[in-house]
Amino acid sequence: MKPIIKQQFSVTYRYDIHFTAGLFTPENPLLGRFFSERLEDAVPKLLVVLDEGVAKHHPILAERIHDYFRDKPAVDLIGEIMIVPGGELIKNSRENVDRIIEAVDRHGIDRHSYIMAIGGGAVLDAVGYASAIAHRGIRHIRVPTTVLAQNDSGMGVKNGINYSGKKNFVGTFSPPVAVFNDNLFLLTLNDRAWASGISEAVKVALIKDAAFFEWIEAHADRLRRRDSDVMDYLIFRCAELHLQHIAGADPFEFGSSRPLDFGHWSAHKLEQLSGFEVLHGEAVAIGIALDTVYSAITDRLHPGDAQRVLTLFQKLGLPIFHPLLEGNGTTHPLLTGLEEFREHLGGRLTIMLLQGIGRGVEVHELDKERVLRAAAALQEGVNLVS
Amino acid sequence: MKPIIKQQFSVTYRYDIHFTAGLFTPENPLLGRFFSERLEDAVPKLLVVLDEGVAKHHPILAERIHDYFRDKPAVDLIGEIMIVPGGELIKNSRENVDRIIEAVDRHGIDRHSYIMAIGGGAVLDAVGYASAIAHRGIRHIRVPTTVLAQNDSGMGVKNGINYSGKKNFVGTFSPPVAVFNDNLFLLTLNDRAWASGISEAVKVALIKDAAFFEWIEAHADRLRRRDSDVMDYLIFRCAELHLQHIAGADPFEFGSSRPLDFGHWSAHKLEQLSGFEVLHGEAVAIGIALDTVYSAITDRLHPGDAQRVLTLFQKLGLPIFHPLLEGNGTTHPLLTGLEEFREHLGGRLTIMLLQGIGRGVEVHELDKERVLRAAAALQEGVNLVS
Ligand SMILES: NC(=O)c1ccc[n+]([C@@H]2O[C@H](COP(=O)([O-])OP(=O)(O)OC[C@H]3O[C@@H](n4cnc5c(N)ncnc54)[C@H](O)[C@@H]3O)[C@@H](O)[C@H]2O)c1
Ligand SMILES: NC(=O)c1ccc[n+]([C@@H]2O[C@H](COP(=O)([O-])OP(=O)(O)OC[C@H]3O[C@@H](n4cnc5c(N)ncnc54)[C@H](O)[C@@H]3O)[C@@H](O)[C@H]2O)c1
Ligand SMILES: [Zn+2]
Ligand SMILES: [Zn+2]
Repeated sequence: MKPIIKQQFSVTYRYDIHFTAGLFTPENPLLGRFFSERLEDAVPKLLVVLDEGVAKHHPILAERIHDYFRDKPAVDLIGEIMIVPGGELIKNSRENVDRIIEAVDRHGIDRHSYIMAIGGGAVLDAVGYASAIAHRGIRHIRVPTTVLAQNDSGMGVKNGINYSGKKNFVGTFSPPVAVFNDNLFLLTLNDRAWASGISEAVKVALIKDAAFFEWIEAHADRLRRRDSDVMDYLIFRCAELHLQHIAGADPFEFGSSRPLDFGHWSAHKLEQLSGFEVLHGEAVAIGIALDTVYSAITDRLHPGDAQRVLTLFQKLGLPIFHPLLEGNGTTHPLLTGLEEFREHLGGRLTIMLLQGIGRGVEVHELDKERVLRAAAALQEGVNLVS
Repeated sequence: MKPIIKQQFSVTYRYDIHFTAGLFTPENPLLGRFFSERLEDAVPKLLVVLDEGVAKHHPILAERIHDYFRDKPAVDLIGEIMIVPGGELIKNSRENVDRIIEAVDRHGIDRHSYIMAIGGGAVLDAVGYASAIAHRGIRHIRVPTTVLAQNDSGMGVKNGINYSGKKNFVGTFSPPVAVFNDNLFLLTLNDRAWASGISEAVKVALIKDAAFFEWIEAHADRLRRRDSDVMDYLIFRCAELHLQHIAGADPFEFGSSRPLDFGHWSAHKLEQLSGFEVLHGEAVAIGIALDTVYSAITDRLHPGDAQRVLTLFQKLGLPIFHPLLEGNGTTHPLLTGLEEFREHLGGRLTIMLLQGIGRGVEVHELDKERVLRAAAALQEGVNLVS
């Protein structure tokens, strides 16, 4: 008997991200084609789960979905379109994940069936998680309806829900089988939600693509005025950069390095402190501002470049500080947040900073005193280049 | 804006299956070496979860584990060794999965920490599931303690728990980071548990390896008499064949073909009907007997070869029929089971049959009348070659 067997294999994932307008209008061939091209021996079932916030703003959507699939023989739409709470609410208990699993059982949905989630990042995360664990994985289609979900979370491979106040404490890595980005959904977002998703584009531009950063700078006013063509390109390029990153190295994050978490260590803390009153993208803008100023204070980044980042956020209508990040004497929330992030990563602390516009650099320690100094500068609105 | 982005990437998994005796004896270097070779920047934590049935038969095991890790600086054993119910009980509610997730939270176990499960296939399935979803995946080590878990489920990539009476209704595909097969655990199994694990070896031999089948035939008496050397080889070869199969094609079962489920469609039904009184391996022996006789009745397999299979099970002390599979007038449990399996697979029904010893063949339909005829033959103990 040999004392050891070495096992090794790879699993390949492929999925397309489609960009369209009016996904469920009768003339739009995309979804119909998707199902007919994938048709195997049996017609698969399709369960649609819809974000309540989206349903409210698009009252005839459910009917349109029924109409759309009526003449599509390659897929069998389940009559019940499931409405679930939107926003962090759906992730804060497992009630809705349970409802989906129960529906999977009741409708006899199998591993060759599909579950489509239509909604913001929170609904995609929760429905994606339910889809990943029911029958050890039902094919999952994402239709993101916010800027953030269309340019970031919707193309990603992570899902999950919260547990006793801890973000994404349970979840899996499991890619969708397709993503459909429909820009018409964005029309019903309020201004805060519209703006907040842009910070993920600023993030990925800052660490990977100077030209894209300059493009965002040049189009900041039109983004603020909600120009759809400009937003289309922003989402497309941001999605592309995210996707390249995921495919490039360590898609399931077995290592410690998580470059796409630039600006996120303090953002997570702020979201949590605010009870998710501060939107993810707003918190990320503040987190990026903090790590950008820190990069300047520690002589990695030219102060003029740091100032460009702050100016851009202001033009976009995004915050760069929040009172909840003020110290109150004893332990500073930012230092607590840093420790929590270290614990969350496990192993070694790895944080992305900037050494130029478009050039991220990873470090393994932050200097606490200078973190607080960066925060104080943001709070006071100090002009970095003065 | 281009209307589509095509995403593609692969995720590679590597893990070793170690064969040893006395994993936690002070002289055994395996586990110590495992952790010191993998040491990164921070010392990882290790949570051990132990099958209550194993703990009962190995009362000093917990103490030995503490002793073993006392002088291992490359890993930080968490003081609490968690005892969980053994057998199907642990899979029939999510209570114990919740307990593990709660422990992950309480002990600050992160994605670079380890959760080790020591136990039968049921405990490995439930602990593996908890490990896969907590923090989107904590490194999972398996120490299987039954024949079935050492030669089959322990090396696999599947985990899960049951849901409203349905086997493995929630779960994930997620490989362990290492498997340690310790043959001393097998000494405390009762004769039924010992014998039942052998049927998975017969299964994989029948569909893939005629020489291995002949080896099992030649060693059936010694297996029955619980000869450890013979069992060591049986487990090693069976594990090897399972691992090759998993690595060879479609490890996460995206398609419909599941050759390793030979004999399992009726086995699942029988386990369920018996409230899991019939052991998995016993049910599999019966399921294999059924599909073997069916293969003969449908002229795929020589009746003499079918008879060899039945004779082998009898020599090994394994059943080839169970009264719960008798018809009772209206719907026959086997026909119900077949429909449930079809639904479970989704898409196309795919069932493995035999066209020779060591040569499986997939079919997409079973003839109901001949399924019942095969069952009747087994019930009456008909001699196939007479
Ligand atoms: N999985 C990942 O990789 C990943 C990455 C980043 C963020 N996230 C998660 O995404 C979530 C945030 O997602 P989000 O920013 O998309 O917001 P959200 O999902 O929290 O939604 C915010 C609100 O907008 C509503 N809404 C959604 N679409 C709408 C539309 N078209 N019109 C009007 N209202 C609409 C929702 O009902 C909700 O009330 C967080 O839970 C975050 O953790 C996940
Ligand atoms: N994940 C997979 O790929 C896969 C494959 C096959 C089977 N399974 C699952 O495995 C389970 C069956 O596993 P099993 O056959 O190992 O039995 P088991 O886990 O059900 O255990 C049976 C009993 O034996 C006890 N036990 C375990 N080890 C012992 C030892 N060394 N000495 C004395 N008692 C011991 C347990 O406490 C339990 O009471 C089923 O739930 C089945 O679905 C999973
Ligand atoms: Zn983000
Ligand atoms: Zn089995």
